[in-house]
Amino acid sequence: MKESTEFEPMDGETFEVRETSLREKLLDAQFDHAEIKTEALLILLNGPDGSGKGEVLIRLHEWLDSRTVSTLTYDINDTDESRRPGGWRYWRDLPRRGRIGIVLGSWYHEMILLRATGEIDRSTFLTALERSHRAEAMLAAEGVRVLKIWLDLSSDKASERFRNKRRGPGSARQPLVVEWSEINTKKERKRLIEAAHEVIESTGPGDTPWHSVPASDPRARDLEVGRLVLTALQSAAAVRTKRRGKPPAVPRRITRGPSALAALDLSQSIDRDTYKTRLHNAQAKLYRLTRKKAFAKRGLMLVFEGNDAAGKGGAIRRLRSALDPMQSEVYPIAAPSDSALARPYLWRFWRRIPDRGRIAIFDRSWYGRVLVERVEGFAARAEWLRAYQEINDFEHQLNGSGYIVQKFWLAIDQDEQLARFEAREQVPHKRFKITDDDWRNRRKWPLYAAAVEDMIVRTSTAAAPWTLVEANDKRFARVKVIETLIARLEAEL
Amino acid sequence: MKESTEFEPMDGETFEVRETSLREKLLDAQFDHAEIKTEALLILLNGPDGSGKGEVLIRLHEWLDSRTVSTLTYDINDTDESRRPGGWRYWRDLPRRGRIGIVLGSWYHEMILLRATGEIDRSTFLTALERSHRAEAMLAAEGVRVLKIWLDLSSDKASERFRNKRRGPGSARQPLVVEWSEINTKKERKRLIEAAHEVIESTGPGDTPWHSVPASDPRARDLEVGRLVLTALQSAAAVRTKRRGKPPAVPRRITRGPSALAALDLSQSIDRDTYKTRLHNAQAKLYRLTRKKAFAKRGLMLVFEGNDAAGKGGAIRRLRSALDPMQSEVYPIAAPSDSALARPYLWRFWRRIPDRGRIAIFDRSWYGRVLVERVEGFAARAEWLRAYQEINDFEHQLNGSGYIVQKFWLAIDQDEQLARFEAREQVPHKRFKITDDDWRNRRKWPLYAAAVEDMIVRTSTAAAPWTLVEANDKRFARVKVIETLIARLEAEL
Repeated sequence: MKESTEFEPMDGETFEVRETSLREKLLDAQFDHAEIKTEALLILLNGPDGSGKGEVLIRLHEWLDSRTVSTLTYDINDTDESRRPGGWRYWRDLPRRGRIGIVLGSWYHEMILLRATGEIDRSTFLTALERSHRAEAMLAAEGVRVLKIWLDLSSDKASERFRNKRRGPGSARQPLVVEWSEINTKKERKRLIEAAHEVIESTGPGDTPWHSVPASDPRARDLEVGRLVLTALQSAAAVRTKRRGKPPAVPRRITRGPSALAALDLSQSIDRDTYKTRLHNAQAKLYRLTRKKAFAKRGLMLVFEGNDAAGKGGAIRRLRSALDPMQSEVYPIAAPSDSALARPYLWRFWRRIPDRGRIAIFDRSWYGRVLVERVEGFAARAEWLRAYQEINDFEHQLNGSGYIVQKFWLAIDQDEQLARFEAREQVPHKRFKITDDDWRNRRKWPLYAAAVEDMIVRTSTAAAPWTLVEANDKRFARVKVIETLIARLEAEL
Repeated sequence: MKESTEFEPMDGETFEVRETSLREKLLDAQFDHAEIKTEALLILLNGPDGSGKGEVLIRLHEWLDSRTVSTLTYDINDTDESRRPGGWRYWRDLPRRGRIGIVLGSWYHEMILLRATGEIDRSTFLTALERSHRAEAMLAAEGVRVLKIWLDLSSDKASERFRNKRRGPGSARQPLVVEWSEINTKKERKRLIEAAHEVIESTGPGDTPWHSVPASDPRARDLEVGRLVLTALQSAAAVRTKRRGKPPAVPRRITRGPSALAALDLSQSIDRDTYKTRLHNAQAKLYRLTRKKAFAKRGLMLVFEGNDAAGKGGAIRRLRSALDPMQSEVYPIAAPSDSALARPYLWRFWRRIPDRGRIAIFDRSWYGRVLVERVEGFAARAEWLRAYQEINDFEHQLNGSGYIVQKFWLAIDQDEQLARFEAREQVPHKRFKITDDDWRNRRKWPLYAAAVEDMIVRTSTAAAPWTLVEANDKRFARVKVIETLIARLEAEL
């Protein structure tokens, strides 16, 4: 039975001639890509079992220089992975600029599978699809080119080839990629292809489109995949490197509405005795909450941001001393390392998502992009503008997989900051030293204030609310932080 | 019943005075340590259950600035860890210079436990001890200061305190560290302390000595631990940073004996037809071997070193195309990154140990230290001199936990290299370009030759042999590599 889309299979000689030429070009393009390092390339290799994912994979490894290629395969039963949000494994293994990752069993696997088995309805399916598109738009903007390939074969033909191969002696050097072991009936196989086709057709040409590669003729299939990879590598190498942003001269909010910071009553304070009692009680209560059984199935990510000298360190110390040190970790966030710069902005934060039942405390955080990077021009305007949505998506995913995200902005006024700076200059301890940078930041107070206001408006979500903490009085701030967290945990657990 | 070593417990006021002073000093010392970044500090916190490991841990987290402190605890049932060599988890979590790691359940845990339960005899125990000492000597030389603390308490007293605490209401904020749950009888508890004392007394003062801290009085215990940490931080910050080595001017072997390289018959070659057949057969055979059940319980680490232009890349490609791409990974090893430089030399190779049943191919390797780093002076003489032993230990550990380590040196002569350099300069492809570095290395041929001879003598072990591959004829080299590996696998599986 011949399909209408099928032509005469390609003969060996034609293949060899074309292969030789393609291969040279591929190696050259890969070399440029690895040298210029403007983008990473992720190749998603998808298709029904029997369409030749394993064969194509081997072919690509034969053609490409293996030193900058990794294969990313995932065992859905891996506990380390399954305890974290769905995207975690891909973030963990994300290749850096100049490298190539070939993904078997991509983030489309689950939605296609569940749709084929009928476990999710159409609207859930479309929501998942929409989320993937958003993630890919972010990757594209952040220097990861995604090449999405579907090896197209009718369900009958695919399962026939799959059965033959499993039996055949030729399988000696052809590792079988069994991706859809849960698909057993003819009806499910058909629905799998249908769901896949819906996925394939869902992205407009403006996004990263799917490439449907006819898979009935293995030689033509491999050459077509190779050609797609070549084009992707060449386009990636042709991308201009990002320019640094221009720091804004005048503070300008991008959101409207009243000032959240101005509404704060910074005069609030607590006397020493009340402080001692409330802090002690709150610490004990917090500890008990984090030892609850319900907590062990969740995870907690705490964000601390604030003006310089607002007392983040002190608040974190009071908070942390209420926690089991074996259960919690503090991450001070400084300028990104080289390997972080070679990947999308959120990469280093994805890598710090704690295991279930554990607590990660961020002393400064992923909000750096819309604060210091915006104000100092370390990020281009387009970068920090889209960061709000990226951050919301990130926190939404955390929330969706059971993590509790709580964010604190510690606010002091300019007078209080000046007093603290001056007091610190009197202290002999080097560790309190005020640097030139601190004074420079202080002169940019209005710029930072505008950035903070925008951040609060754009990223206060039900899933991950901001708590503004009046911090002119350190005792008040420390108690408010812990008591706010307690209320949140009580509501969540 | 009072022990003879016990004094009056410290009163609260005395403690507070001393604590305040100690804490200031600790924070200052920690700040310097974090700024100067000469060493990492690993604090091993050991003792019988009930001696207060959890309390001391909390105390240290209270006293120190949590931003540069991590707690390293290990679940012995973690599959990801238990599939790899014993030291892997510590290498994975090793703090970088300027940071502090507090280890609960250190590498001494297992040997003490097995000795207490009588599962290992004295000589096995001593061998394990000796291995730890060697590892620590390496860490010390490579910028990791290890502070070993044993909280000393008689077995009766410890188990009494442990029982009380487990029951008591005061445990609300005192996480219990249960390290020795396998120890149940009084006899075992006693043997545990005996084994521990043998460990404690086994290191001479020249090494990193153990500190036995009396644990019966919690306040005095905590202050003493704090004092030890303070001294360690201060000493670490006082260490001078390493100077770069001086590149040798004259080739000088450090080993004696005939030249292994001179003994090679580089004229060996294979004609094209024989090559095709033998390569094809060897590839098929290799594939089958790596699919064997016995292989799934092992792991394979392949090292490729060789003269510039000796054909490592081509040999690796022929080898890899015989393997399942999902099962194998190629690691090109270039100059170390910043985060690798902040840790002991072998760190980045430990992190690349493959999971069971998998294959890691190193295109250049940990031998860089005794080759390029020796010749170019990137490593000091003392560093590359001790690297031979460190490398042997590393490979010995790999071998001991079931990994197969196979190393290839691809040798060509100077004429062949010149011919290949010149041929490459004719090729239009940028990826074959010969750089100034290549020509410079070529002029240092005798220096590299001496380094290679030493490397072969010093690191050819039964566990991890070197195979010298005559590579003037590329076909001969490629076949020899795969056939050698086949022979090795057949012997091992």
